[in-house]
Amino acid sequence: MASIDLNSDVGESYGRYQLGDDAAVLDHVSSANVACGMHAGDPSTIATTVGLALARGVAIGAHPGFADLQGFGRRPMQLAPDALYHLVLYQIGALQAFCTAAGTRLAHVKAHGALYNMAVRDSAMAHAICCAVRAVDARLIFYGLAGSELVRTARAAGLTVAEEVFADRSYQDDGSLTPRTDPRAMITDIQQSVEQVLRMVRSGLVRSVHGVDVPVRPDTLCIHGDQPGAAQFAQAIRAALEAEGIAIAPITRPNGSPNSGPIADPHRRAAATP
Amino acid sequence: MASIDLNSDVGESYGRYQLGDDAAVLDHVSSANVACGMHAGDPSTIATTVGLALARGVAIGAHPGFADLQGFGRRPMQLAPDALYHLVLYQIGALQAFCTAAGTRLAHVKAHGALYNMAVRDSAMAHAICCAVRAVDARLIFYGLAGSELVRTARAAGLTVAEEVFADRSYQDDGSLTPRTDPRAMITDIQQSVEQVLRMVRSGLVRSVHGVDVPVRPDTLCIHGDQPGAAQFAQAIRAALEAEGIAIAPITRPNGSPNSGPIADPHRRAAATP
Amino acid sequence: MASIDLNSDVGESYGRYQLGDDAAVLDHVSSANVACGMHAGDPSTIATTVGLALARGVAIGAHPGFADLQGFGRRPMQLAPDALYHLVLYQIGALQAFCTAAGTRLAHVKAHGALYNMAVRDSAMAHAICCAVRAVDARLIFYGLAGSELVRTARAAGLTVAEEVFADRSYQDDGSLTPRTDPRAMITDIQQSVEQVLRMVRSGLVRSVHGVDVPVRPDTLCIHGDQPGAAQFAQAIRAALEAEGIAIAPITRPNGSPNSGPIADPHRRAAATP
Amino acid sequence: MASIDLNSDVGESYGRYQLGDDAAVLDHVSSANVACGMHAGDPSTIATTVGLALARGVAIGAHPGFADLQGFGRRPMQLAPDALYHLVLYQIGALQAFCTAAGTRLAHVKAHGALYNMAVRDSAMAHAICCAVRAVDARLIFYGLAGSELVRTARAAGLTVAEEVFADRSYQDDGSLTPRTDPRAMITDIQQSVEQVLRMVRSGLVRSVHGVDVPVRPDTLCIHGDQPGAAQFAQAIRAALEAEGIAIAPITRPNGSPNSGPIADPHRRAAATP
Repeated sequence: MASIDLNSDVGESYGRYQLGDDAAVLDHVSSANVACGMHAGDPSTIATTVGLALARGVAIGAHPGFADLQGFGRRPMQLAPDALYHLVLYQIGALQAFCTAAGTRLAHVKAHGALYNMAVRDSAMAHAICCAVRAVDARLIFYGLAGSELVRTARAAGLTVAEEVFADRSYQDDGSLTPRTDPRAMITDIQQSVEQVLRMVRSGLVRSVHGVDVPVRPDTLCIHGDQPGAAQFAQAIRAALEAEGIAIAPITRPNGSPNSGPIADPHRRAAATP
Repeated sequence: MASIDLNSDVGESYGRYQLGDDAAVLDHVSSANVACGMHAGDPSTIATTVGLALARGVAIGAHPGFADLQGFGRRPMQLAPDALYHLVLYQIGALQAFCTAAGTRLAHVKAHGALYNMAVRDSAMAHAICCAVRAVDARLIFYGLAGSELVRTARAAGLTVAEEVFADRSYQDDGSLTPRTDPRAMITDIQQSVEQVLRMVRSGLVRSVHGVDVPVRPDTLCIHGDQPGAAQFAQAIRAALEAEGIAIAPITRPNGSPNSGPIADPHRRAAATP
Repeated sequence: MASIDLNSDVGESYGRYQLGDDAAVLDHVSSANVACGMHAGDPSTIATTVGLALARGVAIGAHPGFADLQGFGRRPMQLAPDALYHLVLYQIGALQAFCTAAGTRLAHVKAHGALYNMAVRDSAMAHAICCAVRAVDARLIFYGLAGSELVRTARAAGLTVAEEVFADRSYQDDGSLTPRTDPRAMITDIQQSVEQVLRMVRSGLVRSVHGVDVPVRPDTLCIHGDQPGAAQFAQAIRAALEAEGIAIAPITRPNGSPNSGPIADPHRRAAATP
Repeated sequence: MASIDLNSDVGESYGRYQLGDDAAVLDHVSSANVACGMHAGDPSTIATTVGLALARGVAIGAHPGFADLQGFGRRPMQLAPDALYHLVLYQIGALQAFCTAAGTRLAHVKAHGALYNMAVRDSAMAHAICCAVRAVDARLIFYGLAGSELVRTARAAGLTVAEEVFADRSYQDDGSLTPRTDPRAMITDIQQSVEQVLRMVRSGLVRSVHGVDVPVRPDTLCIHGDQPGAAQFAQAIRAALEAEGIAIAPITRPNGSPNSGPIADPHRRAAATP
C-alpha cells in the first residue's frame, strides 16, 4: 500500500505569544517539525510540543531557522557557511535533548523559512546544513524541496532524503515556491489545496502559477501550522489521501525501519521532572 | 596519588566580542565549563571552544545560565521550576551536539552566575537543574558549591557530584561566596589565592572574610576565565598543587573510569565540515 | 462633571506574533500604554499602535518593561538602579520618536509587569524610573498604583501623578494587586469588574480578596489589552461609568491643560514615509 | 581656514563585553557615532558614551544598525522599507533621550555596517533611512559615503549631508569600500592611512585597490573605534591634518551654525540621577 508523510511546522509559540493550534494539527499529521528557539519557539514551548507529538505517535523533527525572532526566520540573512553549520548544529542539539528527556528519538531535520528557501538555491548553504545534520546523527531524515539542489546536496552528503511538496503553497515553473511577497504564494482554498496534493501524488505533477506542469516525486507533504484553519486543512488532506488508499505515515529508513520511536538509553533517568 | 580537578569558565565570547584568553587558560586546567549561548557564547564560539579543549585533552562541560546576555547571567531572575528545567535542558543539548560533532563526550554540567548562586540556596531550583542533567545523561558529573544544598540535592537525585571550591573568590561564614557587589568578593592577588587553595586541599578548611574557618572537601577548583591574568592564575595554582604532589585531573566516575574522551558513535559522520 | 481616565496596555504584538485586538480596545479607552520593544512590541508594532491611538484621539504613553521578551516582562529581575534608569530612558526615547514622527506628543509613562510591581514596593527602583521620566520631559504624567510608594516617590520627584486602579485585578489588604500566581488574581467576570470599578469611583474603596475595604483615589483605571474579550470589558466599563455621569478622558496637567495632542515642531518633516 | 570633521564609531560595548577604548578615541575626534543597542551597545553603555563625548565637546550622533548583535550588524538582512524606517526611527529616538537627559542635542545620524553598505547601493533603503531621520528632526546631519547614492537620496530628502571618507578602509574603482571579506579591506598601516587621508583632503582623490583615482569631496573622515590602536590612528591623522592647516571640527548647519551643544529644554529636569 502506498504511503506518504504529512508534516507540519509546530512549536512556533514563544513565551506569552501563542501561534497555531498545535494539538489540533498534530492529530492529523505523521511528522512534526519543531521550532528550535531561534526564529520561534522557546525551551518550554519545545517541551510542550514534543510531549504533544509523542502522545499522538507523531515523528519529531528539528526545524532550525535563522536567529531572527522578529522576522520569524523569514528574512534572508547572509551567514558564512561555518556560522550556518554551527547555527544548525546548535538547534538540532537543543531539540535532541528534549527528545532524549522524553524517551524518544529525533527523527528528521527540516530547515525553516528563509534558511530553507536560500538553501534550495545555494549549494554552499545546503552543504553546511547537511554537514550539521550528519555530524549529529547520519540517520536523521533530511527534508528538502522536491527536485531541488537542497535534496541533491543532502544525498551527496550521504543523508536519507524526504522530497517535500507543499499543500498550501503555489509553485513556479522551476519547481520553487512562489515567494510570500507574491499574493498568489499561499493556497487558502482547501479544495484547491486537496486537488494540488492529489495530482502530485497520483501523477507526480504540480501546475505552476504560469500553467506549466512541473514533475515532483513527493515523499512528504507540508502543511503550515501557523495558518488559520491549519487543522481543518490537515484533516481534509488526510481524508482525501486515505480515500485514495494512501496511508499517512512517517518516513522510514532505506531498509524500511522506522526512524522514530522510544529510545532505550541506559544513561537517561527521566524520573519525575520538577 | 592525590588529585584535584582544575576547572574554568570558557567560551564566553559572543560574536564580535572577545572575552578572556581561552586558549591560554585551557593550557592549565583539566575541565572546561563552556557557555551555552544564553548568558554568553554563541554557536560558533562553542565550536571553537570545544575544539580548543579537545586539542588539550581538557574535559568538556556545559555551563548553562540565565537567558540574559546583557547581564552576563549574573542578574537574579525568578523562573518557575519547569521553565528552569527546560532552560537548562536546552543548553545541555546544544552543547552536547558540538561534543558529538567533535567526536567527544560531554563530561559535566555546572550552572553559571546567578543561576548557580540562587540554586546554592534554593532547593527547588537546584532540583530543577539536576532533573535536567539527569534527563539527558545521568552519567554527567554535576558541579556544585562544596558543602551546599546544591550538592546535596544533586546527590539525592542520583548524580555524581564534584564539590567545588574557588581559588579567586572569598568566602562567607556559611561557606557561600562573598557576593560580587562586595569589594572583597574577588581575590586578585595570586599568592593569596594559591594559599587559599593549598589550605583547602591540605586541611579541608577555608577562612571566611570574617576570620571563621569553614570546612570544605574540594573535588574541583574553579578559576574564572574572564579575569585579567586568568591564565597566569591557573598556571601558578597548578604549579603550586603539583609541587605538593597533587595531580591535576578531571573528575572520574564513581568506579574510577574517566567521564570524558572520544565517542565511537556509529551514527555520526563528521567528515569534512563546511 | 467628574471624569476618569481609562487606560490599556497595547502594542504588545511582536513580529509574527499577534497579541490582543488593539484597534477594538482603543475604541473605548482614553489612554494607551504602548509597549516599547523590550518585554513586548517591536519598532513596526509601535508605529502601527501609535497610528491606531492617534486616529482615535487616545493619549499615548510609554510602557517600559524589563528586557525579557520570553517572560513578557513579568519575571522579576534584579537590576542596579542606574541600569534601570538607563533601561527606562531608552524605552521612553524610542517611543517618543514614533510620537514625534506622527506629529503628536507623548503624554505619560507607566511601568510594565514585574517592573511596575517591584517599583510599587521598592523606592530605589521607583526613584530610578521617575528620574528617567523627568530627565526626558518633566511634563509626562506618571502612572502608578493608587496609594503606593511608587506614586509617593513620583510626587517627591516633582512629577504629575495618575493614581491607578485595576478593573480586572483583585486586591490584597494593603492595596497591592494579588499576584498572578494566585488563581484569584484576575477578575474575568465583566459584571464583577464593573462593580469593583463603580465602588472605587463612587466611594473610594475596593474590597480585598480577604474582605477588607481598602481606600483608593483613582485617577485612571487599567484594563489589560491582552485578555480575551478586553474590548468588551472596556466597552462595558465605559458604558457603566458614563451612565453614572462620569466622563472618560485622559489625565490633564495640574493647570487643567491636556497633555496630549499635536505638536508643532518646526524641525520635523514627516512628509511621505517609505 | 579649512576644516574637516573626524568621526568614530563608539559605544559598541555590550554588558560585560568591552569593545574599543572610547575614552581615548574621543580625545581625538570631533564627532561620535554612538551605537544604539541593536547591533551593539546597551542602555548603560549609551549613557556612558554620551557622557564621555559630552565631556570632550565631541558632537554626538546616532549610529543605527540591523538588530543583529551576534553579527555586529555586519551581516546583510533583507527588510521591507517600512520595517527599516521603523527600525531606524526607534534607534534615533532611544539615543536622543540620552542626549536630552544629558542636556545636549543629537547632532547627526550615520547608518552602521551592512545597513550603511546596502543603503549606499539601494536607494529604497537609503530613502527609508532618510525618512526616519527627517521625521525626528530635519536638522540632523546625515552622514553617507562620499559620492554615493546614499548622499544623493539624503539631499533629495532635504537633509544636510556630510560626505564621508574612510581613513582605514581601501576603495573600489566606483568609490565603494572594499568589502571586509577581502583581505585588502582594512588599512592597518598608520602612515598609509595618513597618506590616503591627506590626498583626499588636498586633491579630492583616492586611489582604488586597482590603481584608479576616484574623486571624493570629504566633509568628514571616519576612523573605526573597534580596531586595535584606534586612538593612535586618530591622533596621528589629526596631527597630520592640523599640520596641513586643516582644523578638526564638527559639521555645521548650512548657515554655519553648530548642530551640537547644550539644549535649554524647559521641560527636562535632570537633577540627580539614581
